[in-house]
Amino acid sequence: MPGRPHSTVTPESAAPTDQLSLRRANLSRVIGHLREHGPRSRATIAAETGLHKATVSSLVDELLARRLVREAGLEHSGTAGRPGRVLTLDGATVGALGVEINVDYLGVHGTDLANRPLIQRRIPIDAAGAGPERAVARLAEAVRRALADLARAGAPAAGVTVAVPGLIDVERGTVLLAPNLGWRDLPLAERLAAALPARIPVRVDNDANLAALAEYTYGVVAGTADLVYLTGEVGVGGGLIVGGRLLRGADGYSGEVGHLPVDPAGRRCGCGRTGCWETKVGLAELLRLASPTGPPGGQVRDPDQRAREIDRRLAAGDPAALAAVAEVGRWLGLGGAILVNLVNPRVIVLGGYFAILADRLLPAAQAELDRLAVAGPAARCRFVASNLGFTAAARGAAGVVVDRVLADPTTVGTPPVDAPRVPPARTG
Amino acid sequence: MPGRPHSTVTPESAAPTDQLSLRRANLSRVIGHLREHGPRSRATIAAETGLHKATVSSLVDELLARRLVREAGLEHSGTAGRPGRVLTLDGATVGALGVEINVDYLGVHGTDLANRPLIQRRIPIDAAGAGPERAVARLAEAVRRALADLARAGAPAAGVTVAVPGLIDVERGTVLLAPNLGWRDLPLAERLAAALPARIPVRVDNDANLAALAEYTYGVVAGTADLVYLTGEVGVGGGLIVGGRLLRGADGYSGEVGHLPVDPAGRRCGCGRTGCWETKVGLAELLRLASPTGPPGGQVRDPDQRAREIDRRLAAGDPAALAAVAEVGRWLGLGGAILVNLVNPRVIVLGGYFAILADRLLPAAQAELDRLAVAGPAARCRFVASNLGFTAAARGAAGVVVDRVLADPTTVGTPPVDAPRVPPARTG
Repeated sequence: MPGRPHSTVTPESAAPTDQLSLRRANLSRVIGHLREHGPRSRATIAAETGLHKATVSSLVDELLARRLVREAGLEHSGTAGRPGRVLTLDGATVGALGVEINVDYLGVHGTDLANRPLIQRRIPIDAAGAGPERAVARLAEAVRRALADLARAGAPAAGVTVAVPGLIDVERGTVLLAPNLGWRDLPLAERLAAALPARIPVRVDNDANLAALAEYTYGVVAGTADLVYLTGEVGVGGGLIVGGRLLRGADGYSGEVGHLPVDPAGRRCGCGRTGCWETKVGLAELLRLASPTGPPGGQVRDPDQRAREIDRRLAAGDPAALAAVAEVGRWLGLGGAILVNLVNPRVIVLGGYFAILADRLLPAAQAELDRLAVAGPAARCRFVASNLGFTAAARGAAGVVVDRVLADPTTVGTPPVDAPRVPPARTG
Repeated sequence: MPGRPHSTVTPESAAPTDQLSLRRANLSRVIGHLREHGPRSRATIAAETGLHKATVSSLVDELLARRLVREAGLEHSGTAGRPGRVLTLDGATVGALGVEINVDYLGVHGTDLANRPLIQRRIPIDAAGAGPERAVARLAEAVRRALADLARAGAPAAGVTVAVPGLIDVERGTVLLAPNLGWRDLPLAERLAAALPARIPVRVDNDANLAALAEYTYGVVAGTADLVYLTGEVGVGGGLIVGGRLLRGADGYSGEVGHLPVDPAGRRCGCGRTGCWETKVGLAELLRLASPTGPPGGQVRDPDQRAREIDRRLAAGDPAALAAVAEVGRWLGLGGAILVNLVNPRVIVLGGYFAILADRLLPAAQAELDRLAVAGPAARCRFVASNLGFTAAARGAAGVVVDRVLADPTTVGTPPVDAPRVPPARTG
């Protein structure tokens, strides 16, 4: 499914090496074709994919049995022959759960396989104050409740993905480092799975990566093949979509924009290094600049509310606040230029507090980006504010579960008893 | 062909929309399968790709007629039935030409379709001093000669790709800006095509992008799916391979590492901005640091020789030279950390003068990278020196021509007179 969102888990990343994986890949190919091109008949699928018609029929039988597709009306083609029954993506009986854990809230987003939303809630917590053990217990409780709700809605979840603001070993489901949560080397997938009903696959991923996937699928610039998403909280994270795919890099540690070294003469960062981008554009720095005589900032509470306070002061013409957004906007543009020079996105989508203050930050940011990007305005990259609010990461997380199922449809539902598990033998 | 080099031009980037494009895509699929998995029979190709056997036979007939594959022996499988004839990639009758133009040389690299080298030469020129018109005339002359040589060798070229150190609009074949050549808005593909035999497709691309493709295909870390290549001349450019594909970005302006803003308090760059990475790690800066009392540097001539001079001084224990490589190495590591934080490559391959001085630069560079990368040594990214010397960009350029042919095999040779141009009708 080239150009499709969440394509990191499509089977095309591995050449089928045996009949079983070929079967899985072909199941995925058929369902991906329906997802991408819309309802159509078996014959049309065969013609368009180049798969043998008998193979398509057998694949469709299995997808029908797993209730991932359903039949819907007849297709009247211009050619001779009787009309074919049209197949369409179903998935109403399969659920997907995404949960974001952040410093002061849990975001929960449950959908069915066609991305129809079934659950959406935000739960205040003090994840950093609670310590890893209690935070994971709270997370498990919220997940159990959401799983029960999805099951009640007739769409038991095929999996759950958790979004975490930090460095994630996606393969092992381990949080290597989440500074704002105070987590280090936490085997989150394992801990969470132990607290959930057996056999629910649990994945853990970076919040900005998942939010970027959500922006690519549902956001204001959905479908833009080259975009960067920036989280704007105390910490600043990034998710990079390149050519319609999430850029993960060799270990999944891509998009760590917050600690780009941008000013050797700058201030010390929470990470111990000097002049990280986060010390220039994080919310704590904006608050510090806007209130130079105020108390030294420690943990910033209620980032959403603090940003709105600044917005009110800006509306009132407060000079310190105006100077602060101009300065932060300028550094936002400088970091944007680094992104443009390296990965040349079409759009940089601003999340978190950046989105709240976008109107105020953007003039300075865009001017600085255009000045510093080596291609100048020819790079045609613009900043835009996200409209997904605090749901982006959880939505993206649910989307990853959907993609897992579409990449390997054999993981859900019941196969037909007599379904061939290998393509019919061919002679000739 | 996921995970294959030069995959930006594979047909999978566009879903086939009609029978002709499906035919092209399937021809490419069959030849790509042979390239990736090695010689095999029609029956094996059908089984492994899921294509109908009759379709594979028809596709193979066309590839045979176009002399892109040939038959070579029999395949004895364990199953019943008579042995199938084995097919293998041929392409000895199709040439591919890559040419790099740089400040003081032209690099020429001609191959056949199986990447067997047929021509390799380096021609000294003064591209910057000559001005665009004369430089393009020299380039055209060298290309014409190489095309004639390839034709004489029995492999007339299917196309030529020119590597240029600058910002390229690949779509139009225009050099937007090549500061070290003194070019701006030069429609190079058009100019060159006008000076060549008709119907030779001409493409223009960024030198570092093409060199990165060559590293991925032939270099010391060939096959590494996530790598960055750095050119090290007076200017510094980058090419990013991500997940086995060249990262081009929205407009093809990716990898512009030379002008990353890394030091707001730094010196003025040739581009007019301040503190660009090039002002910290370019060869001119190394020479300036190594000879603080010397004449102010203008254009650096013979970068290769100048780097070797520094190497000799280092071997002799020259303190200024030692301090210079330590300082440049440190900044090399800082820029490496930006790359690692953003795109998380496994390896950063050093070209140009960086490769010549690699042993001297790497200790400081690697230490600084490990310190500044937010994942630290967990990101496991190392610097390595390229061994492709000055041929990397031209090799990559020839590879792009090969890939164009493999992506659309109908562009070369003669199709069989009776070859069906659409798949055989299917009943059933």
